[in-house]
Amino acid sequence: MNQEYIIPNAWSIIEEGWKPSQVKSSESLFSIGNGAMGQRANFEEKYTGETFQGSYVAGVYYPDKTRVGWWKNGYPEYFAKVLNAPNFIGIDVFVDGEELDLATVQEVTDYRLELNMKEGWLERTFIAHFSEEKAIKVIARRFMSLEIDELAVINYKVTAVKGDMRISFQPYVDGGITNEDTNWDDAFWEIEDVVSDGHQGMVRSRTNKTNFYVTTFMQSELLKNGEHVQYADHFDQNNTVVRHKAACDIAQGESVTLRKYAGYVSSLNHNHLTLQSAAKAVLQRATEEGYEKLVKLQADSWAQIWAMADITIDGDLKAQQGIRFNIFQLNQTYLGKDSRLNIGPKGFTGEKYGGSTYWDTEAYCIPFYMATKDQQVARNLLRYRYEQLDKAVENAGKLGFSSGAALYPMVTMNGEESHNEWEITFEEIHRNGAMVFAIYNYVRYTGDYSYIPEMGLEVMIAIAKFWHQRATYSQRAKKYMILGVTGPNEYENNVNNNWYTNYLAKWCINYAVENINKVKADHKADYDRIIAKTELTDQEIGAWKEVADNMHEPFDKELGVYLQQDGFLDKEIIPVSDLPKEHRPINQKWSWDRILRSCYIKQADVLQCFYFFEDHFSKEELAKNFDFYEPLTVHESSLSPCVHSIQAAKLDRMDQAYEFYLRTSRLDLDDYNKEVEEGCHITSMAGTWMSIVEGFGGLQIVDDKPSFTTKLPEQWNSFSFKINFRNQILNVQIAKTGTTITLEGKTPQDVIINGETVTLEPQLVNA
Amino acid sequence: MNQEYIIPNAWSIIEEGWKPSQVKSSESLFSIGNGAMGQRANFEEKYTGETFQGSYVAGVYYPDKTRVGWWKNGYPEYFAKVLNAPNFIGIDVFVDGEELDLATVQEVTDYRLELNMKEGWLERTFIAHFSEEKAIKVIARRFMSLEIDELAVINYKVTAVKGDMRISFQPYVDGGITNEDTNWDDAFWEIEDVVSDGHQGMVRSRTNKTNFYVTTFMQSELLKNGEHVQYADHFDQNNTVVRHKAACDIAQGESVTLRKYAGYVSSLNHNHLTLQSAAKAVLQRATEEGYEKLVKLQADSWAQIWAMADITIDGDLKAQQGIRFNIFQLNQTYLGKDSRLNIGPKGFTGEKYGGSTYWDTEAYCIPFYMATKDQQVARNLLRYRYEQLDKAVENAGKLGFSSGAALYPMVTMNGEESHNEWEITFEEIHRNGAMVFAIYNYVRYTGDYSYIPEMGLEVMIAIAKFWHQRATYSQRAKKYMILGVTGPNEYENNVNNNWYTNYLAKWCINYAVENINKVKADHKADYDRIIAKTELTDQEIGAWKEVADNMHEPFDKELGVYLQQDGFLDKEIIPVSDLPKEHRPINQKWSWDRILRSCYIKQADVLQCFYFFEDHFSKEELAKNFDFYEPLTVHESSLSPCVHSIQAAKLDRMDQAYEFYLRTSRLDLDDYNKEVEEGCHITSMAGTWMSIVEGFGGLQIVDDKPSFTTKLPEQWNSFSFKINFRNQILNVQIAKTGTTITLEGKTPQDVIINGETVTLEPQLVNA
Repeated sequence: MNQEYIIPNAWSIIEEGWKPSQVKSSESLFSIGNGAMGQRANFEEKYTGETFQGSYVAGVYYPDKTRVGWWKNGYPEYFAKVLNAPNFIGIDVFVDGEELDLATVQEVTDYRLELNMKEGWLERTFIAHFSEEKAIKVIARRFMSLEIDELAVINYKVTAVKGDMRISFQPYVDGGITNEDTNWDDAFWEIEDVVSDGHQGMVRSRTNKTNFYVTTFMQSELLKNGEHVQYADHFDQNNTVVRHKAACDIAQGESVTLRKYAGYVSSLNHNHLTLQSAAKAVLQRATEEGYEKLVKLQADSWAQIWAMADITIDGDLKAQQGIRFNIFQLNQTYLGKDSRLNIGPKGFTGEKYGGSTYWDTEAYCIPFYMATKDQQVARNLLRYRYEQLDKAVENAGKLGFSSGAALYPMVTMNGEESHNEWEITFEEIHRNGAMVFAIYNYVRYTGDYSYIPEMGLEVMIAIAKFWHQRATYSQRAKKYMILGVTGPNEYENNVNNNWYTNYLAKWCINYAVENINKVKADHKADYDRIIAKTELTDQEIGAWKEVADNMHEPFDKELGVYLQQDGFLDKEIIPVSDLPKEHRPINQKWSWDRILRSCYIKQADVLQCFYFFEDHFSKEELAKNFDFYEPLTVHESSLSPCVHSIQAAKLDRMDQAYEFYLRTSRLDLDDYNKEVEEGCHITSMAGTWMSIVEGFGGLQIVDDKPSFTTKLPEQWNSFSFKINFRNQILNVQIAKTGTTITLEGKTPQDVIINGETVTLEPQLVNA
Repeated sequence: MNQEYIIPNAWSIIEEGWKPSQVKSSESLFSIGNGAMGQRANFEEKYTGETFQGSYVAGVYYPDKTRVGWWKNGYPEYFAKVLNAPNFIGIDVFVDGEELDLATVQEVTDYRLELNMKEGWLERTFIAHFSEEKAIKVIARRFMSLEIDELAVINYKVTAVKGDMRISFQPYVDGGITNEDTNWDDAFWEIEDVVSDGHQGMVRSRTNKTNFYVTTFMQSELLKNGEHVQYADHFDQNNTVVRHKAACDIAQGESVTLRKYAGYVSSLNHNHLTLQSAAKAVLQRATEEGYEKLVKLQADSWAQIWAMADITIDGDLKAQQGIRFNIFQLNQTYLGKDSRLNIGPKGFTGEKYGGSTYWDTEAYCIPFYMATKDQQVARNLLRYRYEQLDKAVENAGKLGFSSGAALYPMVTMNGEESHNEWEITFEEIHRNGAMVFAIYNYVRYTGDYSYIPEMGLEVMIAIAKFWHQRATYSQRAKKYMILGVTGPNEYENNVNNNWYTNYLAKWCINYAVENINKVKADHKADYDRIIAKTELTDQEIGAWKEVADNMHEPFDKELGVYLQQDGFLDKEIIPVSDLPKEHRPINQKWSWDRILRSCYIKQADVLQCFYFFEDHFSKEELAKNFDFYEPLTVHESSLSPCVHSIQAAKLDRMDQAYEFYLRTSRLDLDDYNKEVEEGCHITSMAGTWMSIVEGFGGLQIVDDKPSFTTKLPEQWNSFSFKINFRNQILNVQIAKTGTTITLEGKTPQDVIINGETVTLEPQLVNA
């Protein structure tokens, strides 16, 4: 567990002092990635202390056979999991024949880790004492190139601080790795080829079952006191490892550096027969550019990202560090270049949740990518689901739905469902609504309607069909109901009429019908194609409308609140604040049944609906529902505090808004949930961004215009962010003195600032 | 799957004709046991066809590490499982050096299996053709002695029907066996010693973790044409097997018999250091008695059982065979001699359900054992739970209950919970009510109140505490509620206010309070001891009463039915008869969520309550509830049809009553659920007995007197049964001409026959 050991700093994540107990947490926090690959901050040299090794290639997965206690019909046969990929960072280091291992050396001093977010590199510095007479200083920097996204670079510099010595490096690539998290201890990888060629080494592996081919490669250089030196190609090789050797004698004060260019090329992007050539091409470009140039390119690439995505907070260093960490990690995870990829809940920082795609993407991540990147990036995220529509239809078919109804999976890598808790897999169907909401959100924000006739409408129709079939008619109540569901609040299972789900279902149908009509009117060719494909009739649409128009919405008149689900008020309603401290977190302290029958809410549920559809409800309604549900919410999901922060800001509850903001932005840095060892909470980081931009910044789209209702936490002097709105940049600065918005672009833009519409004129931007 | 291949016969289960596809089903149906051990009807000689090997020692289990997909707080760490024990039946047979194996011989003719229920033995007969010139006839009879319950006897006779030949037998004991059903492929047994001594062979094994010691033993004899012959002690032995050899030349028409006395002695009943002597003592007694005498003793023991437990049905051979099969299997499984043992759902016929104890014992089995055995047997079954009370308190503690509240486990071997589906393990809490109902039922039937002050009251108090703590107060409804449960109908999970559960909870509290007062008045010393132990105060009792008096009971006034649970009428109510045939059984055809949101009921739930407390409700109420729920019930639990048969008989729906009776009584023989290969449904067999005695016989206890409201199915000429009522025997004969009851005993007994009270005078019984 972390104890807030991260040193506050505006641009870097820094740890100082050697504490073996923090290694696994730091491996998560200091992870690096470039969207195409990523890895935990494992050590290059041998380390026999506790560690959790992880290096991942985006899009390469393994279908791990499902393990359950009691099989239920409908469970998927496997869980598609991100794979721990071959290790290319390894450099064993020997000092006069004695191996460097921080777990066993006499003493480690001057230990320092820095993750430089501004320039995108990780640096580890330490002095290892082998004896009273012998010590070395190591500065190991590495980064994953944004410019060449199959390339990682390591610069491992050893200086003799006490004594003369012979330093021997053994850089290697190791294909013999496994996942910590396997169901049946299957071998995920087969190694097909281990090659050593000059200073290059390569291991070609193939994933079992899925047959992804990945060549993991390296090339090394040796420098003495900064000058390249020659060394022979001594190497050693076995069935899984290719290992080179490079040694050099240095006197006290001198240094020797092993530089390693390494990475993955995979059959996702290359013909699997030419992977070796692809790897050689990457290495050739890397060595041609050279180390210093690559470092510079990396800083330039990050500068471009920050220019668009940075948020500044003046007067609150921890808040500043928190938001930059979130933005940095999101960008390390997903850059939106490839519509086959998506955003795993742990990104490249751990194996948990299988690295798969959840509804987090649609509900939490899309706003961030829409506002901080070219709109093509968000479109790619939407397209990912469009491309998996057939699988979603198949998935619904397994559960008894027909004629093209789709249920998107709870967890997926390739469109197939990978999750196997019945109460989630089969019942957390609200995820289907998030898919449509994301389309709505995208069109509302970008103004790019073209996505709907091209792709979105088919998704909406398939989902409307699902809701229509899934609702049942209660003769008694003369209403349509959705029975047996789990809402976003997973601390209730198999409930009837979760309001959030029912509301979304109704909205999905209405939005689908609205767009069917719009596409019919304005995009006739698309309309004809889609109707022919879906065989949709007016009669069926009429039946959908019947369901939407008569959907049951549990509501309590006396309290004026929408009910979490039918019967919620039969529970004992006791605020979280009255719970003894030793009962928290309830998901660790209470048995599952106790959680279920309690009134405690894991994450925003009714309030999530108020977040999605803020313009459907009055501020008074929001206040009543917030006042009822906020005291019952335990926030044991990382996705919860951000929504509560936004709602609190709307209601001018600034203390709460600030508290929730800190919790969401430093969730991992301060390890609120005591689990950062397993990886960072990547998808909820987008929620942190929302709490600033949509919470304190109050961004909404009103009548096609961006509207800002700004709130400055009293702890801050000012804050600023930028958003890309329809290909022009709005630079928003909120200070105690007021809000200033400038426009970088070519066309005047109307914006609403705290209720007043203002026309912004384009400003010249310094290039 | 079976295709009703069992030949109807009043006293035997018979299969004729060799069909390898039926082997596994027959291994279940022809199982033998004697309460202390039991086994499937596996072949003695080698068989390379499909088979499911199983031999079990009562009370010897292994804690198999729990396997789940997603861990929930409160799950038990292991599942206590019955162990597949070492094989002692094995006799490899060689004919002129060629091994007998029904899967590979040229032809098998005259194959016949008979399970003689009257005398308690299994016999397998066949002719195996090795070639045109060579064939043997085998008659292999075996039984598990009721008289010496550590002993099994096998008489394996080979006759040369074609050709002269050398027959070589290799009787063996094999300790190297495994369970089919293991979670992690653990080795359950360690073999400690393999001994061969003259014609005796023994394997001493120890279970891992639980450290039960079992010595599996055998002793062989060889007979030629019925005369004992000497043979040398050739033997062969490895780490897991002791194997002897006995060979003999026979001419065509001659026979040779290998007789094997074998069995288990365990540390459950002996000092584990003296198991070998214990085994030798069993063998000495067996050989002194000799085979013919042991056969006779076995027939005598069964005659005694049948004298008390038999039910005759005249005019319906399949119904007759069905009920005898049920009674026979129940007696093979449990004889009530040992309060450490209980009745596993599959008895000794398979591994499924781990051989553990379920609420089936209290809800279904106790009436059978009460009425057909000495009342000590039912008392032992009650005592089993009393002895596990501490563990039930521990179990409740894990779920957050305190101060002595008990939750009996869903599944157990030693009192600890062994089940791990949250919706069942944590939520199917109605089982607690069955524990108390069984005490009530026992006292009502036997008149033996002494059990309550001695043991029962403590159980009742602990359970009343549980219900009190488990109920929550709904401010809105001003009622106590029991939220988040699963009722007997497992096709609903995590529902609120399952009526059956709420009713039982209320009743348990009231019954506990009634008995606290009674014990206080009549058994002061016991009262003081129990109050001191439980620290029960009047205030706490007052709080219980508050819950019982204000318990919510979901009821629909319009329909006049108690509701399965809150909100049941929001479902689409479509009778089972309207379901397309290809959707049945729904537990194989539908995904779990679809089952849950449907109106279909797996097993009697509201109607189970009407069964337990028949005197609490009017016939009109029963009719309304039966008419509502029966059409919605799919009976996909073996425990369902019997209750429906009884209720239908009460309502004079005799066609339904008969149909349900046939379904319950021939469930396994005709393999209704297509799963008899896995073992027989032992506990539901007691339900079959209830459908005759309590359904057609209409037995109730009214004002301390047995009352019979008799109904004769029109398919039957007459039927008869006996019950032990307070140590006297009532012999009940129901014919078209009327009902006759005779009393075997010493004291006159009042009985109510179809509403009329009659005093029966004792009759002389032929000894």
